[in-house]
Amino acid sequence: MAIDSKPVRGTKDFLPQEVVLRDAVQSVILDTYRSYGFQRINTPVMEDIDRLTGSDGGENLSLIFKILKRGQKLNLEQENLQENDLADSGLRYDLTLPLSRYYANNRHHLMSPFKCIQIDKVFRAERPQKGRLREFYQCDIDIIGDSSVNSEIELIYVTSKALLNIGFDDFTIRINDRRILADLIVSSGFSAEDVSSVCIVFDKLDKVGTEGVQQELLEKGYDDAVVSTFIANISSDNTIEAIEKICSNSEVIADVKKVINDISSLSQGKFNIVYDKSLVRGMGYYTGMIFEIVSSKFSSSVAGGGRYDKMIGRFLNEDVPAVGFSIGFERICEILKETNSFIKDTSSRVAMIYDASDNYTEVLSKSEELRQEGFVVATYKRGKKLGKQLDSLLEQGFTHSYIFNESTEVKALIKR
Amino acid sequence: MAIDSKPVRGTKDFLPQEVVLRDAVQSVILDTYRSYGFQRINTPVMEDIDRLTGSDGGENLSLIFKILKRGQKLNLEQENLQENDLADSGLRYDLTLPLSRYYANNRHHLMSPFKCIQIDKVFRAERPQKGRLREFYQCDIDIIGDSSVNSEIELIYVTSKALLNIGFDDFTIRINDRRILADLIVSSGFSAEDVSSVCIVFDKLDKVGTEGVQQELLEKGYDDAVVSTFIANISSDNTIEAIEKICSNSEVIADVKKVINDISSLSQGKFNIVYDKSLVRGMGYYTGMIFEIVSSKFSSSVAGGGRYDKMIGRFLNEDVPAVGFSIGFERICEILKETNSFIKDTSSRVAMIYDASDNYTEVLSKSEELRQEGFVVATYKRGKKLGKQLDSLLEQGFTHSYIFNESTEVKALIKR
Repeated sequence: MAIDSKPVRGTKDFLPQEVVLRDAVQSVILDTYRSYGFQRINTPVMEDIDRLTGSDGGENLSLIFKILKRGQKLNLEQENLQENDLADSGLRYDLTLPLSRYYANNRHHLMSPFKCIQIDKVFRAERPQKGRLREFYQCDIDIIGDSSVNSEIELIYVTSKALLNIGFDDFTIRINDRRILADLIVSSGFSAEDVSSVCIVFDKLDKVGTEGVQQELLEKGYDDAVVSTFIANISSDNTIEAIEKICSNSEVIADVKKVINDISSLSQGKFNIVYDKSLVRGMGYYTGMIFEIVSSKFSSSVAGGGRYDKMIGRFLNEDVPAVGFSIGFERICEILKETNSFIKDTSSRVAMIYDASDNYTEVLSKSEELRQEGFVVATYKRGKKLGKQLDSLLEQGFTHSYIFNESTEVKALIKR
Repeated sequence: MAIDSKPVRGTKDFLPQEVVLRDAVQSVILDTYRSYGFQRINTPVMEDIDRLTGSDGGENLSLIFKILKRGQKLNLEQENLQENDLADSGLRYDLTLPLSRYYANNRHHLMSPFKCIQIDKVFRAERPQKGRLREFYQCDIDIIGDSSVNSEIELIYVTSKALLNIGFDDFTIRINDRRILADLIVSSGFSAEDVSSVCIVFDKLDKVGTEGVQQELLEKGYDDAVVSTFIANISSDNTIEAIEKICSNSEVIADVKKVINDISSLSQGKFNIVYDKSLVRGMGYYTGMIFEIVSSKFSSSVAGGGRYDKMIGRFLNEDVPAVGFSIGFERICEILKETNSFIKDTSSRVAMIYDASDNYTEVLSKSEELRQEGFVVATYKRGKKLGKQLDSLLEQGFTHSYIFNESTEVKALIKR
C-alpha cells in the first residue's frame, strides 16, 4: 500500500506560484528593513527546553513542540516518568525569546543600540483551523538598548513602511501601554495580582461591550463595588485624552501621545494610529507600550509588538531595554493572495522545446544565449501534442516558446 | 542566577555580517536556478515519524530529531513503553524525502517534468564537530518525471553554474553509477545482498588504497577467492574506459560517458568532471547515476546527488523517475568566509546622528530624504564621545555619517 503523502497535521505544502508570492513579499519586507539600517540575524529553531517552558510566553507555553532526548539520555526505565524527563529541547514559539538569548550571547559583537531583523519560522501546536498553521513565518524588527520612545516610533514607522511597500494599505495601528492598563485596574480597587486576570476579561471589550466585561468580572467573584468603579472608569471614550483623566502616570500618557502624534504626522494620511484602552496583547513579557496593526481585510491583527524591558535581564542579570514589532507573514500572504493585489512573477519565461533526437548540449547552449538576453529559459522535451503542451506551458506561467531546430526567435505564447 | 545564553548544542547563532554573506549566497543560487526555469517549493520541516524512520536514509535514520506527542496522545502509563510510542513526527534529515511526498501529494498542480528548487533547513543529530551543524541549509534542485540522461546533464550543469556565479571555481565533479557498482561487486562473485556492505568498504578506496579494501573485506569474512577477483577488477585505472572492460551493462556505461563528454564540453574549462569507481554516496535510495562535487579548499564534498527512481513510487504505487543535486550551503559559506572571496554588502550606509533634544520626526524625515537618494540610513543617538562613536560605526560597516542639525551633506567615514 502506498504511504500517505499528506503533510503533517496543521502544516502545509506551498505550490510554486505561492512561493513566488511568499519570496517576493519576504524580500520587500527585508529590503525595507535593511534600508533603515536594521541588520538581519539567524538563530536556531531549536531552543533549550527549560528556556522555552520557563519563559513568559503566555498561552504559547502549552503549544510547544518538544524534542525527544536521544541515545542514553533518554531513560524510559526510570520510575514515575514525567513528560519533562523526555525532552531536552523544543521548537521556538516566537522570535523574541531566541533574540533575547542571542543578544545576551553575542552582545559584544553587536551595535548599540542593536536594530535587528528576523525573518524565520516559528512553531505552535495550535488546533488546526483556517488561517492558522503550526509552522509559520514571522517578520520581526527589534531595537535593543534604547529606552527612549524613539524606538517605538521608529519600529511602528518602519513596519508601516514595509506594509505600504508590499502594496498593503487601509490599515490601522492600535496602541496602548501595559502600565496604563495596570494603573486603570489597580486604581479601581483590584489588587496588583489581579491585573493579568482582569486584563484577559478586559481584552474582550470590543466583542462583548462594557456590560459583558462587567458580567464576566462579577462571575469571577470580584467585589461588586470594585467592578462598578472599574466599569465607570472604562465607560469613557476610547481616547488617550479620556484615559488621561483617570490615570495618574502622566509620563507614560505623554509618551503614548507623542507616539500617536508623531506617527500621525509621519503617516501622510496613508494609515491611521488610534489609542485603544482595551488592547492587551497576549504575551506575558511586555512591560510598557504595546501595539498591533489591524486591517479591514482580516479579522485578527496582522502585526503586533511592544516593549519588553525585563526579558534580556533574565539572561544577563542586568536589564536591557527592548522593543519589538512582528509582522504575521502568513496572514499578509493570505490577504494578498485573496485580493490578488500583489504583482506576480514578471520575468519573460521561455519554454525551449526540443526533440529526443536533438543534441541536448546544443539545446542547453542555445538556451544560454537566450538567458544572456534576459529571458528565464527552461528546456522541455516535445510532447506528443505540441499545441496542448504549449497551452499547458502558458497556464504554468511561461510567456514565450522557442522550438529548437524550427524557431529563429522566441515567440509569445497566446491563449488559443 | 542568569539563564545560560548559549544556543542548543550543535547549533549556531549567526552574526549580522555572516547573515549578509549567507543571504547573498542563497540569493545568487536561487536566482541562478530560477533563470533556468526551476520553480521553488516550500515544505514543512516536520514530517510524519513513520515516513522518516521507514525511509531509505542510510545512517541519517539514527540522527533524526523526534518530536514528542502532545496531550492525551502521550501516554506514559502504558507498559513496556518504547521510544516509538512517544513521537508522532520528527524533523526532516534531508529535502529529498519531503520532495517525494510533496510530489505525490501535489502532482496534479505541477509541471511535467517538474523542475524544482528547495532552499531550506534540515536537521541531523550528529556529534558536534567543526563544520558540522545540527541545523543547516541545503540548496537542492531536482527533476521529476524524466528518465533520460538529459536530467543528469542539466542538474550537473545548472549546479555548476550556481557555484561559478557565487565566485566558486577550481572544483571537480566526480560521477559513478550504482548499477556499475552492483555489477562490479556481483560479477566478482559476491551475492546481491552483499552489495551495500561491500560498497561501504569500497567507499574508503581513496583513503586506504586497494590493500586496505582487501584487508577489510577479508576481515568481514568474505571468501578469499571472491575478494581477490574483486581486487583484481578494481585495480585498473580509475576511468570509465577501464571499468567498461569489466562491466557488462553497456547502456549505463554509455550514459555515464555521455554525461562526462557533454559536461566537459559545456564547462568551457572552468571546472572538471571525472569518473570515480569508488564513489558510493551514503543514501540508500539512489538507483542510478550518483555524483558529487569536491574542491581542493574543503576536505569533504560541497555538493552531492543522484538518481532515485524508486522513492516516489512508495507514495504513489507507481514509480516516477527522479534525479536531484544538493549544494551543502554551510560548507560553501565556510569556504567563502575563510577565503574572503565573496563580495560583501556594497550599499552606502549612512549613520544619521541626532541629539536627544532633536525632534525625532524631523530626524526620520531627513533620513527618508537620504534614503530616496539610494543610501541605507540608520538613526543613532549621539554618544558621549562622537569620534569614538564614528569609529565604531565605521567598524560595523557604515560608510558615511550625517550629523542632524550640523551636516549639510553626507560625509564619508574614514579610519582615524
